[in-house]
Amino acid sequence: MSILVVGSVALDSVKTPFGTREDALGGSGTYFSVSASYFTSVNLVAVVGSDFPQKHINLLKRHAIDVDGLQRVPGKTFRWKGRYTYDLNTAETLDTQLNVFAQFKPSIPEKYKNSKYVFLGNIDPELQLEVLKQVKKPDLVVCDTMNFWISSKKKELIKTLKHVDILVINEAEVRQLAEEKNLVKAARMICSWGPKSLVVKRGEYGALFFNKGHIFSAPALPLEDILDPTGAGDSFAGGFVGYLAKTGDISDKSLRRAIVFGSVMASFNVEDFSVGRLDRLKWPIIKKRFDQFKVLTHFDSVR
Amino acid sequence: MSILVVGSVALDSVKTPFGTREDALGGSGTYFSVSASYFTSVNLVAVVGSDFPQKHINLLKRHAIDVDGLQRVPGKTFRWKGRYTYDLNTAETLDTQLNVFAQFKPSIPEKYKNSKYVFLGNIDPELQLEVLKQVKKPDLVVCDTMNFWISSKKKELIKTLKHVDILVINEAEVRQLAEEKNLVKAARMICSWGPKSLVVKRGEYGALFFNKGHIFSAPALPLEDILDPTGAGDSFAGGFVGYLAKTGDISDKSLRRAIVFGSVMASFNVEDFSVGRLDRLKWPIIKKRFDQFKVLTHFDSVR
Repeated sequence: MSILVVGSVALDSVKTPFGTREDALGGSGTYFSVSASYFTSVNLVAVVGSDFPQKHINLLKRHAIDVDGLQRVPGKTFRWKGRYTYDLNTAETLDTQLNVFAQFKPSIPEKYKNSKYVFLGNIDPELQLEVLKQVKKPDLVVCDTMNFWISSKKKELIKTLKHVDILVINEAEVRQLAEEKNLVKAARMICSWGPKSLVVKRGEYGALFFNKGHIFSAPALPLEDILDPTGAGDSFAGGFVGYLAKTGDISDKSLRRAIVFGSVMASFNVEDFSVGRLDRLKWPIIKKRFDQFKVLTHFDSVR
Repeated sequence: MSILVVGSVALDSVKTPFGTREDALGGSGTYFSVSASYFTSVNLVAVVGSDFPQKHINLLKRHAIDVDGLQRVPGKTFRWKGRYTYDLNTAETLDTQLNVFAQFKPSIPEKYKNSKYVFLGNIDPELQLEVLKQVKKPDLVVCDTMNFWISSKKKELIKTLKHVDILVINEAEVRQLAEEKNLVKAARMICSWGPKSLVVKRGEYGALFFNKGHIFSAPALPLEDILDPTGAGDSFAGGFVGYLAKTGDISDKSLRRAIVFGSVMASFNVEDFSVGRLDRLKWPIIKKRFDQFKVLTHFDSVR
């Protein structure tokens, strides 16, 4: 099954203790799409400016990502500038220029309107709802958001969540959205607003998955060389939704494996700047890392 | 196999958002011993003052903890006073009175000198080494420490570590001790100083176990009601060493299960103040929670 993704395509300037990149390919839609492309076909709806380099379009096309919904409009592409210090856990935003993204009205091409798997990248919750109105009868809607929208558009976000099956969100944002310090209570509260399940991203500590009263905990892979954490959350979502769409199976067993594939893709993503590492993966390499997660977490039962 | 533990026995005054306790039974030796007592017999070496209530001694004895090595000397018992805010992750120490603990010289009773399993609670690394000199030929030495000793007695600590098989330590302390931000690199460095393995405690994020180049990741159980996190690390160590001593098996498989039993005991400990919850456990309850960890972490392989 193919995936419809709506998100940002951006030019990122990033500085980490391990290097610097100027105007590198970034954005939630980009990271998600390249990550998910290893599992299934992806249809990307986003906007870029007239300055957007053709080589980036070519990269997306190389991953068989359908870019017919990628609008190119006059003006400059969305730009984000940030840096990380040694702990690599939190980005400090130095500059955000919305540019053509400020006027973005997602228009879903006719051929995508029957999409069964939809990922709503981290954009204005009102736009996320607009997208859902254009899609006929999706099987699974997965949605990301961030602290900025929780602060500025909480009411609109909660309205969107009524139509969402799985919310993917950072740990601190779960607490912020529910206004509850205890993660289990906060998760239950959010699930009472609409989403059947909740994926809580915890950075280097992995992810928690709340599903119908059950909890699944997946670690992150302890890595020696992390070059750039930008896009880890969207790469995670790409692996997660990608695996579900590939198998067409949203049973608890499949969801757990999907969480691990999400962690796998995030672990690759941070090993290079931009989509550098994601761009040059092969399925056997992905499968091998999935097996590493099994070794990382396995223990035998006791009688 | 029984365990020899040397640590502190204290009277703790604790305030959390969920209540307050004055002069409650605490200390690293106490939490460790009560936790480990569900797995095997425990011999406790520590010191208390003349003010130490008999009811606390009775509690230890009720768990078949041998207190022949628990010296009672004139003066006041070691006291710690601390509080936690809503995030429950870090204790704020309000007052520490070493009292009789300041002059503590662990003297290992003759009958314990052949101990095969030794746990060195979080005390001065020079005293930890003194303990090891008195023990004849242990099979397994597990050691805890803390930021205070890393700052003030790093040289002595590293000397002690040469004789330690497994170091149990908090995440921030791993980085502090190795002077290395990357956890994997820091762990490898510490293991090059003596310990064969390293247990990294990550609080609500669980534990990482570094063993001969392999890593095992165990989550913490997401809990709805945490009353008091004091002693979680020592309860963890009690379950960990307790399981190893009970089985006499220190294979990788057994070590992984031991880590999970450590997480199980820590998860109980935080559900009440002092050793309240640990005091009233039964083996079937412990086993049931172990099984919960299996459900929490299990996912199927893919072909």
